[in-house]
Amino acid sequence: MDAVKLSEQLVKRKEIQEGRKKLVLLVLDGVGDIRHPDNDYQTPLEAANCPNLDALASRSALGRIIPVDYGITPGSGPAHLGLFGYDPREVEIGRGVLEVVGMGMDLRPGDVAARANFCTVKNGVVVDRRAGRPETEVSAEKVKLLQGGIQRIEDVELVIGPSTGHRFGVIFRGPGLAEGVSDTDPHENGEPIHEAKAETPAAQKTADVVNEFVRRAQDVLQGGDPINAVMTRGIAAPPDVPSIPQRYGLRCGAIATYPMYRGLARLVGMELLETGQSAAEEFQTYLDNRDGYDYFFIHIKATDEAGEDGSHERKVAAIEAVDEKLPMIVESKPEVLVVTGDHSTPCSMKLHSWHPVPLLLHSPRCGADGLPHFSEGDCNCGSLGIFLAKDLLPLMLANAGLLDKYGA
Amino acid sequence: MDAVKLSEQLVKRKEIQEGRKKLVLLVLDGVGDIRHPDNDYQTPLEAANCPNLDALASRSALGRIIPVDYGITPGSGPAHLGLFGYDPREVEIGRGVLEVVGMGMDLRPGDVAARANFCTVKNGVVVDRRAGRPETEVSAEKVKLLQGGIQRIEDVELVIGPSTGHRFGVIFRGPGLAEGVSDTDPHENGEPIHEAKAETPAAQKTADVVNEFVRRAQDVLQGGDPINAVMTRGIAAPPDVPSIPQRYGLRCGAIATYPMYRGLARLVGMELLETGQSAAEEFQTYLDNRDGYDYFFIHIKATDEAGEDGSHERKVAAIEAVDEKLPMIVESKPEVLVVTGDHSTPCSMKLHSWHPVPLLLHSPRCGADGLPHFSEGDCNCGSLGIFLAKDLLPLMLANAGLLDKYGA
Repeated sequence: MDAVKLSEQLVKRKEIQEGRKKLVLLVLDGVGDIRHPDNDYQTPLEAANCPNLDALASRSALGRIIPVDYGITPGSGPAHLGLFGYDPREVEIGRGVLEVVGMGMDLRPGDVAARANFCTVKNGVVVDRRAGRPETEVSAEKVKLLQGGIQRIEDVELVIGPSTGHRFGVIFRGPGLAEGVSDTDPHENGEPIHEAKAETPAAQKTADVVNEFVRRAQDVLQGGDPINAVMTRGIAAPPDVPSIPQRYGLRCGAIATYPMYRGLARLVGMELLETGQSAAEEFQTYLDNRDGYDYFFIHIKATDEAGEDGSHERKVAAIEAVDEKLPMIVESKPEVLVVTGDHSTPCSMKLHSWHPVPLLLHSPRCGADGLPHFSEGDCNCGSLGIFLAKDLLPLMLANAGLLDKYGA
Repeated sequence: MDAVKLSEQLVKRKEIQEGRKKLVLLVLDGVGDIRHPDNDYQTPLEAANCPNLDALASRSALGRIIPVDYGITPGSGPAHLGLFGYDPREVEIGRGVLEVVGMGMDLRPGDVAARANFCTVKNGVVVDRRAGRPETEVSAEKVKLLQGGIQRIEDVELVIGPSTGHRFGVIFRGPGLAEGVSDTDPHENGEPIHEAKAETPAAQKTADVVNEFVRRAQDVLQGGDPINAVMTRGIAAPPDVPSIPQRYGLRCGAIATYPMYRGLARLVGMELLETGQSAAEEFQTYLDNRDGYDYFFIHIKATDEAGEDGSHERKVAAIEAVDEKLPMIVESKPEVLVVTGDHSTPCSMKLHSWHPVPLLLHSPRCGADGLPHFSEGDCNCGSLGIFLAKDLLPLMLANAGLLDKYGA
């Protein structure tokens, strides 16, 4: 039994139902970084001028979170699962699920999702797995054609949505579906499209439906050049885990601009709030919806984009932009405010990384570490230590006074 | 699933096969210590003059590792298993295995090993479990006599090797052997030698062979005074775990002067490199063999010996001797260099201890904690935190850029 499971047992559901306490998780995507000679041995958080974060830091508890485990670099899915109180070493999000969720498609419990490609087949073999890399607009037209031609297969409804280039997503919705189905994508040119095979008896119906979809798609696309067939891969069901509202009784609102993060939030039971592109607009959305929810996930994308591009300067600017508007949240006095990231994206690496992420937790019960900056170095010395992201949600609940005592 | 298991799934085997990246684990045995009034409240690492380690520290990531778990003092076996990426709480090395490995005997998969004593039996009972504590040379002669007289028992080959005083080791090599056999050593004088009993059906053959060995030994040693019999204990098989080369595809070279550490390295699949007694000779062995391996374990014994003797002064000198030659390794630019210990051996305790061990990790991806010294106090404030030794290898692989991202 870990902190997460204990917290589910100890949570004060009645008090949560009263709705007086607001918990805010402000995620600066990829905010963590490392000191590097190219940037004068200063991380973006160290280089940024952040009077509001710094003022908050000295009255807060600091620490660092490890997204998944030591040395493990997470994708966005596992990284956010950890922040949301799931153990990403145990709960997996399949590729198909992440694809359709990232496209903003409405994936529901019981559904099965697939990534799909348009391709070119000649004489029974795939000659181009990407069908000449069509423009997204061309591909989107073909998706409409497919959806018009194939709405159901037996009692299974199909929802087909466009992605970029040759890619699209398919949701299969109906009774008796399960993951555990092999790819129809042969993964190299010169081979026929594979038959989807069920890896377990429970997945047989799904395999049959997928195979029928691939066959019918060839009929619908017949004569197309270069797009005349489809293949599927990464077939997966959404993770079979209770949502945050089910686990804790928290009404959760998600404020994020990118479909991927909105989709991840919806997978764990958050409601999606409409918002704008800037930090100020996202924070205003929080203020406007404060009464309707107990827990807010606010996602800022710009920090990660700058890190992936290797731009220390833009990452500093993205952090300063958040800092400037931070009083909008602080002055609303949420019971708990957490500022952190889902993972590090060091500018010198231009990639996600395993490095622990700076964490600031402010509440009436957090104490005051008295450390002057919200930075990697100060967070190393904070009272929260360096710990796994999955344990953040129990800490937030404790700091809100929403966990009962364990034992007598 | 922990970091170790994830790292086995995520490791980039192809890139390792290219052999361009070198990982170096430099173990200063027992280097960790505690501040004590006898030593002016300075640990040996704090008292030592280490310009090279300090220069490296400020450009590295620091932390501390817990050898096994909180409060658990490890023997050399568990301590090294942790450093090598095995969980010493799960993987055990039996006493018999450690004994023969520590004697430099060639233990192989499928073998079973026993610690053994010469003893004195009169009228059917053991009257001296240590046979008057014979000189090692006397005992070694008797080992030769035994080996000459008992080369096989049925289809099982026996390899008998001398240790110190009344002690020696036996390897049983043949089909169908297993651990789970009780001691023939009665553990007190005045009792007959016990019958070895199988604790599981799989161990019956081993028990039979051990009993036959004990009987035949009495024949061979008949009339000897005081050495006229033998007893066995701690019968064990080498741990049934995949080697580091199997788990990660790393070619591992071990550079150590003591048989115990060479044996431990061989148990996890390292090749043993011939070397000299000094740090300079060991480091030169690394330089000479750099092309042939991906991972180097370099073991320095002098720090632990000084700690066990309670000599703060000698421990300081041992650390300074390593520091002086450290540029030999640093200038070869390994992709990852780790400097740490297998456990602490505080001079004030003259014993192994549970205290977390200072850790320095240097790589192009480690960042720079900017802490001025490689010391217990500075390592407490590093970005690696305080964590279990088993998670070090995943961190080393991550810092070498040899682990794929987890999830999308």
